[in-house]
Amino acid sequence: MEYWFTENQAAGLRVSIQVEGVLERCKTPYQEAVVSRTARFGGMLTLDNVIQTTERDEFMYHEMICHVPMCSHPAPRRALVVGGGDGGSVREILKHPVERVDLVEIDEKVLDLARRNLPSISCKLDDPRVTVTIGDGIEFVKSANDAYDVIVVDSTDPVGPAVGLFGEEFLRAIKRALRGDGLFVAQTGSPFYFPDEVGRVFGCVKGIFPKSGVYLGCVPTYPGGMWSYTIGSMAHEFTTPAGGRTVPGTKYYSPEIHRAAFRLPPFVERILEGDAD
Amino acid sequence: MEYWFTENQAAGLRVSIQVEGVLERCKTPYQEAVVSRTARFGGMLTLDNVIQTTERDEFMYHEMICHVPMCSHPAPRRALVVGGGDGGSVREILKHPVERVDLVEIDEKVLDLARRNLPSISCKLDDPRVTVTIGDGIEFVKSANDAYDVIVVDSTDPVGPAVGLFGEEFLRAIKRALRGDGLFVAQTGSPFYFPDEVGRVFGCVKGIFPKSGVYLGCVPTYPGGMWSYTIGSMAHEFTTPAGGRTVPGTKYYSPEIHRAAFRLPPFVERILEGDAD
Repeated sequence: MEYWFTENQAAGLRVSIQVEGVLERCKTPYQEAVVSRTARFGGMLTLDNVIQTTERDEFMYHEMICHVPMCSHPAPRRALVVGGGDGGSVREILKHPVERVDLVEIDEKVLDLARRNLPSISCKLDDPRVTVTIGDGIEFVKSANDAYDVIVVDSTDPVGPAVGLFGEEFLRAIKRALRGDGLFVAQTGSPFYFPDEVGRVFGCVKGIFPKSGVYLGCVPTYPGGMWSYTIGSMAHEFTTPAGGRTVPGTKYYSPEIHRAAFRLPPFVERILEGDAD
Repeated sequence: MEYWFTENQAAGLRVSIQVEGVLERCKTPYQEAVVSRTARFGGMLTLDNVIQTTERDEFMYHEMICHVPMCSHPAPRRALVVGGGDGGSVREILKHPVERVDLVEIDEKVLDLARRNLPSISCKLDDPRVTVTIGDGIEFVKSANDAYDVIVVDSTDPVGPAVGLFGEEFLRAIKRALRGDGLFVAQTGSPFYFPDEVGRVFGCVKGIFPKSGVYLGCVPTYPGGMWSYTIGSMAHEFTTPAGGRTVPGTKYYSPEIHRAAFRLPPFVERILEGDAD
């Protein structure tokens, strides 16, 4: 007998992944969180039936969401991850010479599940440079001022509980929480399946930050494989690594990929100009 | 009641697309060919239950497989498409000032289906510059000598009937069929799901052509979204458009995307070095 997990990735589109077993599942106050064992993808974390991360392809997502902003800053010392309870973003940020990484995750159970079942992703959550706060990312960011060189919004998609993480009020709080030359990045979904959302968030970021942009990367288990990240910067250029900065041992990111990721297909450029089909 | 088409895209991975109806289906001597109507993707052509092309995302594939080699040649006059019975590659090649495009497709029924049901893709098959031959692409290429500036191998995947289109003998015939400064390109599948195949074909091409390379693009309905194209060139550089060449009205391709597509993530570079996981 075969078991298949199926996600409704967009209207009229489903992706199914064969599952060998459930490692752990729980109903949290916020969502249903499950870690499954799969043959193709290793361990897989789903929240409310949406794939968040798999051991096999998470490097593409976590390297791109972290190293582009981290390498755009000439000397990032303090970073904040909003969401990201699986620990993958923290792991990547710690490849840079940072002094401190804060992580604020609303759902403690996600951290627990990842620690127990996804060690290759969560392995750095207990690093001494990391401070984990369980709480609302919006409130946490509002209480911070001039505090971070880099903020990574590693959230679920802009529907449901995370919708506030893509709104103007939160983006203004992010700006205040950044140091004077800080940068922030958020995952902003599929430009092919959800062009309106990508265009809307980019429009907000563009109106708030001195510099803004969108870059693309691939994540095979996310809808359509093509994924967008929106970046807002207080001062630094971000389309090329600062001063030849690089990261050892990456599998997706490289300085060349950093630059190439900002080259957008014309159909994506049109979305950013507010001209989505 | 809902109807869903499901494709087994890789071991342990299925993609399902909601279907509103079947426009036409037929058993040909080579395969089962179906054109379905879908809400999300418009018309969709499947061969033996594998998605070949959809009206909504085909531009990403056809623009990248055609314009990279066509723009790398300073003045392409004669082109050959092997496979490509839906007509999408012919349509894109005709955006360049070519004198003649030959298309050799083994399965006449695919052309018929596309002409009747996918006019936005097949619309240029009856252009006076196009000559269609129904027959075996391998034999057709073997009989050509010093004939083409660009050859596009727009085939099904390197399993089943198309396997010969990825072998050394065929690649040597391609080389003879090219003019002295010609280029060829083949779609070579997903580096994430089928790294061994990408590495093997690239190794063959590298051993036969003076210049060789791999570039990447996105195709949302193909496994993982990240797709590879392998290029072999007799003389011209291909990582940048020749002499500022460009194509008007594209939605995915641009000169910047052309250059960016050759920037490969380290995990893909390792595959090409024969070092697949």
